[in-house]
Amino acid sequence: MLSRKYVETFFEEKIDRHIPHLSVDCVIFGFHGADLKVLLLKWKGFDRWALPGGYVERRESLDAAAQKVLLARTGLRRVHLRQFHAFGGLNRKEASVRKLFAGVGVKVPDDTWPLHRVVSIGYYALVDYWKVRPGHDFMSDSCMWCSADELPPLAFDHRDVIRVARETLRESLASPHIAATLLPERFTMPELQRLHEAILSRELDRRNFQKRMLESGMLERLPDRRTGGAHRAPYLYRFKVERAGLSD
Amino acid sequence: MLSRKYVETFFEEKIDRHIPHLSVDCVIFGFHGADLKVLLLKWKGFDRWALPGGYVERRESLDAAAQKVLLARTGLRRVHLRQFHAFGGLNRKEASVRKLFAGVGVKVPDDTWPLHRVVSIGYYALVDYWKVRPGHDFMSDSCMWCSADELPPLAFDHRDVIRVARETLRESLASPHIAATLLPERFTMPELQRLHEAILSRELDRRNFQKRMLESGMLERLPDRRTGGAHRAPYLYRFKVERAGLSD
Repeated sequence: MLSRKYVETFFEEKIDRHIPHLSVDCVIFGFHGADLKVLLLKWKGFDRWALPGGYVERRESLDAAAQKVLLARTGLRRVHLRQFHAFGGLNRKEASVRKLFAGVGVKVPDDTWPLHRVVSIGYYALVDYWKVRPGHDFMSDSCMWCSADELPPLAFDHRDVIRVARETLRESLASPHIAATLLPERFTMPELQRLHEAILSRELDRRNFQKRMLESGMLERLPDRRTGGAHRAPYLYRFKVERAGLSD
Repeated sequence: MLSRKYVETFFEEKIDRHIPHLSVDCVIFGFHGADLKVLLLKWKGFDRWALPGGYVERRESLDAAAQKVLLARTGLRRVHLRQFHAFGGLNRKEASVRKLFAGVGVKVPDDTWPLHRVVSIGYYALVDYWKVRPGHDFMSDSCMWCSADELPPLAFDHRDVIRVARETLRESLASPHIAATLLPERFTMPELQRLHEAILSRELDRRNFQKRMLESGMLERLPDRRTGGAHRAPYLYRFKVERAGLSD
């Protein structure tokens, strides 16, 4: 968490501890209802939302820098975290950094590298929606889940970053680990289908989906059913694989 | 191509044109015989081989930096080029940079960033083996194809970089573009099978492979057959998709 003092003295005292022109950005996905969610920050006095991210210290690996961001924003220590793309175009709107810090009354010196070219290493994380305690701090008014299909106005090139993260997530849906990290341990077939539909942004045929999932051999049907609903109680399943591919 | 004068004055005059602590490395794959090949450089007076790579200019995108390396080493302008991972661990053996330049009599100043932490953005390229004219220059004795299964001693963490590139290539084999860029336009079923086997590093069942490929709908059988061999002349195929996913 960033304190007022840390931020106020960042550009004088701490910037040189970091690798210049480099940052990490984290696209943190969760699943709630039938909706794929992304965790976003609203910076104080700044009219756009942004992905949680940070600079990389000189004696810190990229993975460690991303895990640090995750911990600060979700309270989670061991999460499925995957590097997916480096964003290194020529106009990532680095000048917005000045506005972002102006919102909390910190002046950014003209010659500092965060105002100029920054290459950002994108990571995505898949987290259990219910386990996250979104963390905001001195810089940010709020940190909250937003629908991946209806994003608010975003800073920098963060809309592109989320788009590429989503494409990668879609491609990786073949791996059972993915769904396993976004669902509770026991789930019904309709819940699993809604998750796949949310990631793919399209409806799937119920029978084909169920057939494909059962034939994959990834699922174990549990002896008890979900009760309490108006309909016939659905079977509960869990993944046979170990839950949560851990990156550390 | 690097000239003697360019290299000799690099650390005094040109290093500041580049984004510090950042580089690109290119894993250039070709297919020859039944073998997956990687294009490697042997630096003068240095006992290890290395991937072609370079630093990134301040007014150059990451993709442009990688394309520049490709052009210099293969003579090819439009190739399937894909960014696959950023290598940002804490000990990528950056100190070897000193030995590398010592091989051509260039002294590297102690305080220069290439000797310290460097994050490298990995790209892989799939090229037509027969179209490449490997390019060496003032820094390198030779630039040549090496078997991906029997790599020579490699500098830095380049063995890891090649391993991750190969894993990515393996995962992307589902896309017909991949095979299309590594084969000549017209090919036989055994040639296609050998390519898949080389990428996967394992033998495939001939009948299953042929069945799967034909059912995919990606292939078009041509009216003429390959002639000249001792066996029954095999059918020739080509991909229905457009050849070569171009990145620029």
